[in-house]
Amino acid sequence: MGKLVLEMTMSLDGFTAAPNIGVDHPLGEDGERLHGWIGVDGSPVSELDREISAEMFTRTGAFILGRRTFDVGEAPWGDDGAFGMPCFVLTNRARETLVKGPTTFTFVTDGIESALKQARAVAGGKDVLVMGGAEVARQYLNAGLVDELRLHLVPMLLGAGTRFFDGGRVELERTKVVESPAATHLTFRVTAPRSPGR
Amino acid sequence: MGKLVLEMTMSLDGFTAAPNIGVDHPLGEDGERLHGWIGVDGSPVSELDREISAEMFTRTGAFILGRRTFDVGEAPWGDDGAFGMPCFVLTNRARETLVKGPTTFTFVTDGIESALKQARAVAGGKDVLVMGGAEVARQYLNAGLVDELRLHLVPMLLGAGTRFFDGGRVELERTKVVESPAATHLTFRVTAPRSPGR
Repeated sequence: MGKLVLEMTMSLDGFTAAPNIGVDHPLGEDGERLHGWIGVDGSPVSELDREISAEMFTRTGAFILGRRTFDVGEAPWGDDGAFGMPCFVLTNRARETLVKGPTTFTFVTDGIESALKQARAVAGGKDVLVMGGAEVARQYLNAGLVDELRLHLVPMLLGAGTRFFDGGRVELERTKVVESPAATHLTFRVTAPRSPGR
Repeated sequence: MGKLVLEMTMSLDGFTAAPNIGVDHPLGEDGERLHGWIGVDGSPVSELDREISAEMFTRTGAFILGRRTFDVGEAPWGDDGAFGMPCFVLTNRARETLVKGPTTFTFVTDGIESALKQARAVAGGKDVLVMGGAEVARQYLNAGLVDELRLHLVPMLLGAGTRFFDGGRVELERTKVVESPAATHLTFRVTAPRSPGR
């Protein structure tokens, strides 16, 4: 069975998006710079950064995301849905499964464990990747379900926005560091997850 | 002239100490683990970590610290004051200069720029290092006075405590990464400091 991976791009001061996320600015107002390492702000992407984002797709068999991430992403992701594999959208508002070329978006209304179970069932032994938003990522972390944390740490202080970590003590072991020009890519194994309800 | 350097040990979720800092637990309750890379919690210190903390002293000509850091540190630092060089303590409560062997503690009541000026005057061209607490460090950062940020990023989520960064957008350039067993040591040059009053 693959791992459950949280993969997030974060400023050095802990934000995963600038303030005022919306359809017009999915990463918050003036937040594109944060995702410069994948070229979102029009920056040239280094070969190393390209490999790292490609690897995210080759290791992963299914994605899990939150409803707001889906809502603001749907248009920019285009007609093929960008992911090319099964995606599970956590939501309180039921919706029919949406097929966009090789990407399917299944809307899950009965919680994070159900979404994980459904994602694992179709991931073919590959990893399941929680790609955000921060709130969904935290739910998995706080439930003690996460095996690996991959942080793309961007050398800036954003000052405000969506904060990734919101509490709970978790012990980690750093397993990999890759320095690209635009970010420090850190991988951690969760060695002592926060227990549910702690 | 040397640089003004902020040097902080921080958990991955942005805390520089656990909750409830006091004389009995200068790093907060159960916060020693955060400073395990320098052996505070009794952990063995790796050769690489030893070099990094030694380098902090050889590059530095004067320290600046906050009054609370001094108050909780005075006893554990012992009779020689631990620093072996001039230290400037920012405070609202005036006090006579304290000499502890090779270390002098000068209490500065007229603000961060005055402390910096006094520190530079005796640093002999070496760096001036702001060693905390977080509040004093942020004052220098927010005033746009910091040249370099050295973060010792510890692979744990502390969940609560003293948060280092509190707002303000600052652009950084990562200049060095060192991976030791206990921490990821990151050095950044401040390329676009937050302007005073912004």
